[in-house]
Amino acid sequence: MKAAVFKGAGNGPTLVIENRPDPVPEAGEVLIKVSRAGICGSDLHLTSGHGLQLPLDSIIGHEFCGEVVALGAGVDSIKLGDRVAPMPYVGCGKCPACFAGQPHHCPQARFDIVHGFSEYSRVGVRDCVVLPAGLSDEEGALIEPLAVGLQGVRKATLPIGARVLITGAGPIGLATAFWAQRLGASKVAVMAASSRRRDIAQAVGATHFIAQKEVADPGAAIQEALGGAPDVVFEAVGLPGAIAQAIDYVKPLGTVVSLGFLGEPDSFVPVAALTKELRLLFSMCYDKQDFQYTADVMAAGDHRPRAMITGTINLDALPEKFETLRGASADCKVMVTPWNH
Amino acid sequence: MKAAVFKGAGNGPTLVIENRPDPVPEAGEVLIKVSRAGICGSDLHLTSGHGLQLPLDSIIGHEFCGEVVALGAGVDSIKLGDRVAPMPYVGCGKCPACFAGQPHHCPQARFDIVHGFSEYSRVGVRDCVVLPAGLSDEEGALIEPLAVGLQGVRKATLPIGARVLITGAGPIGLATAFWAQRLGASKVAVMAASSRRRDIAQAVGATHFIAQKEVADPGAAIQEALGGAPDVVFEAVGLPGAIAQAIDYVKPLGTVVSLGFLGEPDSFVPVAALTKELRLLFSMCYDKQDFQYTADVMAAGDHRPRAMITGTINLDALPEKFETLRGASADCKVMVTPWNH
Amino acid sequence: MKAAVFKGAGNGPTLVIENRPDPVPEAGEVLIKVSRAGICGSDLHLTSGHGLQLPLDSIIGHEFCGEVVALGAGVDSIKLGDRVAPMPYVGCGKCPACFAGQPHHCPQARFDIVHGFSEYSRVGVRDCVVLPAGLSDEEGALIEPLAVGLQGVRKATLPIGARVLITGAGPIGLATAFWAQRLGASKVAVMAASSRRRDIAQAVGATHFIAQKEVADPGAAIQEALGGAPDVVFEAVGLPGAIAQAIDYVKPLGTVVSLGFLGEPDSFVPVAALTKELRLLFSMCYDKQDFQYTADVMAAGDHRPRAMITGTINLDALPEKFETLRGASADCKVMVTPWNH
Amino acid sequence: MKAAVFKGAGNGPTLVIENRPDPVPEAGEVLIKVSRAGICGSDLHLTSGHGLQLPLDSIIGHEFCGEVVALGAGVDSIKLGDRVAPMPYVGCGKCPACFAGQPHHCPQARFDIVHGFSEYSRVGVRDCVVLPAGLSDEEGALIEPLAVGLQGVRKATLPIGARVLITGAGPIGLATAFWAQRLGASKVAVMAASSRRRDIAQAVGATHFIAQKEVADPGAAIQEALGGAPDVVFEAVGLPGAIAQAIDYVKPLGTVVSLGFLGEPDSFVPVAALTKELRLLFSMCYDKQDFQYTADVMAAGDHRPRAMITGTINLDALPEKFETLRGASADCKVMVTPWNH
Ligand SMILES: NC(=O)c1ccc[n+]([C@@H]2O[C@H](COP(=O)([O-])OP(=O)(O)OC[C@H]3O[C@@H](n4cnc5c(N)ncnc54)[C@H](OP(=O)(O)O)[C@@H]3O)[C@@H](O)[C@H]2O)c1
Ligand SMILES: NC(=O)c1ccc[n+]([C@@H]2O[C@H](COP(=O)([O-])OP(=O)(O)OC[C@H]3O[C@@H](n4cnc5c(N)ncnc54)[C@H](OP(=O)(O)O)[C@@H]3O)[C@@H](O)[C@H]2O)c1
Ligand SMILES: NC(=O)c1ccc[n+]([C@@H]2O[C@H](COP(=O)([O-])OP(=O)(O)OC[C@H]3O[C@@H](n4cnc5c(N)ncnc54)[C@H](OP(=O)(O)O)[C@@H]3O)[C@@H](O)[C@H]2O)c1
Ligand SMILES: NC(=O)c1ccc[n+]([C@@H]2O[C@H](COP(=O)([O-])OP(=O)(O)OC[C@H]3O[C@@H](n4cnc5c(N)ncnc54)[C@H](OP(=O)(O)O)[C@@H]3O)[C@@H](O)[C@H]2O)c1
Ligand SMILES: [Zn+2]
Ligand SMILES: [Zn+2]
Ligand SMILES: [Zn+2]
Ligand SMILES: [Zn+2]
Repeated sequence: MKAAVFKGAGNGPTLVIENRPDPVPEAGEVLIKVSRAGICGSDLHLTSGHGLQLPLDSIIGHEFCGEVVALGAGVDSIKLGDRVAPMPYVGCGKCPACFAGQPHHCPQARFDIVHGFSEYSRVGVRDCVVLPAGLSDEEGALIEPLAVGLQGVRKATLPIGARVLITGAGPIGLATAFWAQRLGASKVAVMAASSRRRDIAQAVGATHFIAQKEVADPGAAIQEALGGAPDVVFEAVGLPGAIAQAIDYVKPLGTVVSLGFLGEPDSFVPVAALTKELRLLFSMCYDKQDFQYTADVMAAGDHRPRAMITGTINLDALPEKFETLRGASADCKVMVTPWNH
Repeated sequence: MKAAVFKGAGNGPTLVIENRPDPVPEAGEVLIKVSRAGICGSDLHLTSGHGLQLPLDSIIGHEFCGEVVALGAGVDSIKLGDRVAPMPYVGCGKCPACFAGQPHHCPQARFDIVHGFSEYSRVGVRDCVVLPAGLSDEEGALIEPLAVGLQGVRKATLPIGARVLITGAGPIGLATAFWAQRLGASKVAVMAASSRRRDIAQAVGATHFIAQKEVADPGAAIQEALGGAPDVVFEAVGLPGAIAQAIDYVKPLGTVVSLGFLGEPDSFVPVAALTKELRLLFSMCYDKQDFQYTADVMAAGDHRPRAMITGTINLDALPEKFETLRGASADCKVMVTPWNH
Repeated sequence: MKAAVFKGAGNGPTLVIENRPDPVPEAGEVLIKVSRAGICGSDLHLTSGHGLQLPLDSIIGHEFCGEVVALGAGVDSIKLGDRVAPMPYVGCGKCPACFAGQPHHCPQARFDIVHGFSEYSRVGVRDCVVLPAGLSDEEGALIEPLAVGLQGVRKATLPIGARVLITGAGPIGLATAFWAQRLGASKVAVMAASSRRRDIAQAVGATHFIAQKEVADPGAAIQEALGGAPDVVFEAVGLPGAIAQAIDYVKPLGTVVSLGFLGEPDSFVPVAALTKELRLLFSMCYDKQDFQYTADVMAAGDHRPRAMITGTINLDALPEKFETLRGASADCKVMVTPWNH
Repeated sequence: MKAAVFKGAGNGPTLVIENRPDPVPEAGEVLIKVSRAGICGSDLHLTSGHGLQLPLDSIIGHEFCGEVVALGAGVDSIKLGDRVAPMPYVGCGKCPACFAGQPHHCPQARFDIVHGFSEYSRVGVRDCVVLPAGLSDEEGALIEPLAVGLQGVRKATLPIGARVLITGAGPIGLATAFWAQRLGASKVAVMAASSRRRDIAQAVGATHFIAQKEVADPGAAIQEALGGAPDVVFEAVGLPGAIAQAIDYVKPLGTVVSLGFLGEPDSFVPVAALTKELRLLFSMCYDKQDFQYTADVMAAGDHRPRAMITGTINLDALPEKFETLRGASADCKVMVTPWNH
């Protein structure tokens, strides 16, 4: 099969399309023919040459869906022809984490065998959801980033009618805005550096959008938009200072949920959080219920998340597109079609 | 009346015993004759010349109790001769914060009129608890710092049988250890820089004590003591790096409760908290229920907190003792008796 | 003004349209010109001659909205011309219950002065919400019953993707179905005695409908519809045996929320609830946030609850219609227009 | 080995001491030599001839502890000579319930092989706790009923300083009183029909005791004892009407935890619970953490539960004693020593 393989950062192309042997599903796995795979900011980070990096020769892409074309031994809960969206892990299936639908906490989890920038992928039978009728392939490939936002919103236990601020208007921030609006917030302001994602933010459910660079006093702009300081701030920026800003924006006794990945030291003034008596929650990944519910909600007719998709390319075009996404771009979520349909 | 008055840091004595007019209780207040007042690390900080400082000529001391000797207008819930321990605030009594027993969140709260290093103090009738029989004056003056620890433990919602680590063995850390052990933890390790407070820690309920300076690998020492990484870490140190350490020590999916006051930028690596999916809670002060329950528990016979008291002095001796406590000392909680009995 | 006045059950018409003096708003109140008022099953019960009964000469109707036409002393948070939906209580505004937006828990609450089957009504300024643009008068009058369902769903703290059963397809059951579907359930089955409200149930968000009389084994029908026993059952029937049925249907470790009013002894077998280790929650009324959020959600474009409205009549037609609604009828929510527009 | 075997109710002795083959531990099990086994009210009910009954020829007794004398295949977490207290179930060890320490929810749980009124018993290695040093055998056999009370108190999530009422002063009510007092209540009233267990109740931690038969108005007596209506009522009676009484006693917005076993229809008036907006929680059994924490607390020096033990007999005396306990008796918890020491 064809696959986009990571060749290291720095000299020559980062990704190269190579031929690899077709994978063979083991017991408890199925093989899928990949329909759509989204390009994620993490894919860019983990191949950037800075911070945590993927092993050379990895196949990447962890936001995807596909059609089941072969069954591993003993599989009877999924059948040929089903469309599934995998969590990008295969757990042992027998440990408390696996029972809880959290294969990323399974001590034996494998993630190297589940990949979307390829024609085929192995998928753990217990670590995926079957797409309901009414869900497009594109939506199937959006489940993973949406589930990240859902998990964050669940952790926050939003007060009904909450005022919510989301910092960051990338796919994670947008997913969070979608869920916050759907699951209890009355006002949802999204704040990014620039206004490039204003329309998408409003399309997915944000009631207000603030471009930080364009306002004199971001804190005041937030309070004006929401009618007061936010009850909950979701930080989906991942840059130094973003958590300190969230602490600054949130109301006393409020909650900050931090979703950003930041592998370097960051700073904040503890007494600022202490005098507000804040809850600061860190939210990573998702449970299998997050995948299932995301699929259910779109299948029931809420198709707003599609607004995040700004383009679709085929697998051969990926290596070049991948590099252009490293700079500022007009794109939000770009989809890859390994089979060109 | 005699009172210890703050005269500014740096030149000459910080505290001076002066004569002040006897206070007169207003409506909704009582006047108390102070029985015992504890010296708190915050008193030292707020008079140190660094960071947030008290106004000149303030009377300080916020951990105390006394006997009611005069009633303000309209007071009928408390009577002459009652012994009371005040929260060091007088709230308006009519706002949601006051109804919730949180006068420190009352927009009209006054704290300058409630002070323990003086012969008398005004006290808000709704902002204090009446000491039950069976409680000594010394215990009455311990209620305030104990209530700080209780609030932190309540915020943590300890899993039953929890493994708990407390960093810091000052009065706040010790109070937290006391409550953690009483309210659900099976193992409670207290870690300080040195071992000077080992005995007190064990007397109040710690099951293990770790002197950070005396062990090669503090993280390993904690896990050995507790039989695994702590479910909850309470940080009661208030120095740079203490929160990062707590994040490092706690188990994945665990909770860190930060109690320390630190008014300068502190740093941590967000991804360390993210990959553990932590809850980081900031806990300041207390509700009135914390005061009441603390009193009830000691009155019901649990007198272990007394072990924190390492000395008692009269008011005239306070200015000098106050300065010696700024350095390393053998003392933990020192009590002041304004009336020398 | 004209008003529908309760004249006692049993002999002659229950409601009579009479002339009453126009009400005058007191301090902290406004006067509204009623736009729409819904007829509620409770109105029927409380005037039926059985169980708890309203005082003679009461004006009834507690689901309504209207336009502000006069301001009481000191009112500045609401202005003439605002459209408001009142909670049917006027609280003192100064007690913890009032601060919490729960005037029905206020010891001084008055409910006799707030009534919708009349041309005008007094309304407590703090006990109502201003209708956002985009909300019709009909929707304004639906807020009250929808808020009942919202409170029930909030109490349940639905697991994400929950399987939900609602017993009862009257306005309360339908409101609950609407919120359960919106706020986290994946599958929502509504079960009524007959199928007369099947279409309305599906229009407001139910994914399945079961007519108890038409299936041989209701428990099996529920499990088939939901793909397993419900995580949460909301009981909105209010007849003897309904709670026992809910206990029977729900899954082990599940939750039953009882919303029905039943003033006579009802029976169940405790061990049935014990071996399932159930939570049985009783939910009555709403907080002010429930009113506000309900208004916000419809204003943001979710108009599905309108499907509950099956007719609109003028005030003069109310007494007769009122009696026909006591029997089985094709109606669900009937609206009254005191001003015929 | 000798064992007390159930021979059916009604004709001749209910229990007969017989010789049975010594049990052999299977994989994942150990064999223990029983040290102490408590007689439980459930043992009496399940052999009474009414309601749910044990199979003939069962060996009974589920509150016990003993010393490990043989290891099944593959056991390495427990060693010969350890003293253990078993949960009276052996789970499969591989399902979510077993991972959660709830073998009674394991679909493959066996309970017939774990029994205390015998010289030996098989015990599941994962379904027991090792007794810490400092715990007597008698305390080991008290863990099971204490764990029932602990689970109930955990389910209630007691507000700090709560007012608590427990109805029923049998071992379950007393265990609940012990934990409620230890884990956050300030006032704990125990109410029984008579005053026969007043002293034991106070010894385990009750602050007040009410003999229902001896007071004119039990509700008033409760409010006087607690200084107001209880925040939480634990029902540990198990007779008709006990839940309705608990609903009547508890304060509005309060919680009732029902622990009693009642297999027949019971009645209450739903609107009484509705207008109070109550939580009614049903609590059965325990998790393994309840066992562990109970052992830890007694090992740490809180030996108050011993006050429940009113006598110790040998196995041969059990059949006769068993019958006398069916009537009113001065006994509370009677211990059996199969080996007479
Ligand atoms: N928690 C998890 O499980 C998880 C999963 C996946 C990704 N992540 C992390 O989540 C973060 C966001 O990822 P993404 O792909 O959504 O991001 P992205 O596409 O890189 O977008 C980042 C967003 O942050 C905005 N931004 C930059 N500085 C800001 C500031 N000071 N205040 C407010 N907004 C600011 C940017 O504004 P412009 O639009 O103007 O550029 C942009 O909208 C990353 O750190 C990523 O690694 C976490
Ligand atoms: N949250 C609130 O409402 C509240 C209220 C009052 C006070 N506070 C704050 O709580 C903090 C503690 O106050 P306190 O009076 O209890 O403190 P303290 O008496 O100054 O004690 C500080 C403790 O921290 C220990 N320590 C120093 N570095 C450490 C490290 N790296 N790891 C572990 N322990 C370390 C010290 O060890 P040694 O014993 O070896 O010196 C000492 O035991 C302060 O920041 C204070 O301002 C908060
Ligand atoms: N908690 C609160 O704050 C609050 C507020 C208002 C009202 N309520 C109470 O809520 C209850 C429902 O009120 P409503 O106005 O919605 O009721 P409603 O219009 O009288 O409807 C009752 C529904 O129950 C159905 N039903 C009858 N027996 C049933 C059974 N055994 N299983 C399942 N469904 C059954 C009926 O079926 P059919 O459609 O076939 O007739 C009908 O759909 C009443 O008791 C009311 O007093 C409570
Ligand atoms: N949830 C569980 O997992 C679990 C586990 C084991 C047992 N149980 C059940 O828990 C219940 C209690 O068991 P137990 O062994 O502790 O009971 P027990 O020894 O039979 O004691 C029952 C107690 O209830 C008192 N009582 C009787 N009527 C009362 C009333 N109207 N109000 C208040 N108290 C009243 C009795 O008073 P006197 O002292 O005056 O007789 C006695 O103290 C039983 O139903 C039992 O089956 C439940
Ligand atoms: Zn696993
Ligand atoms: Zn106030
Ligand atoms: Zn009020
Ligand atoms: Zn099992």
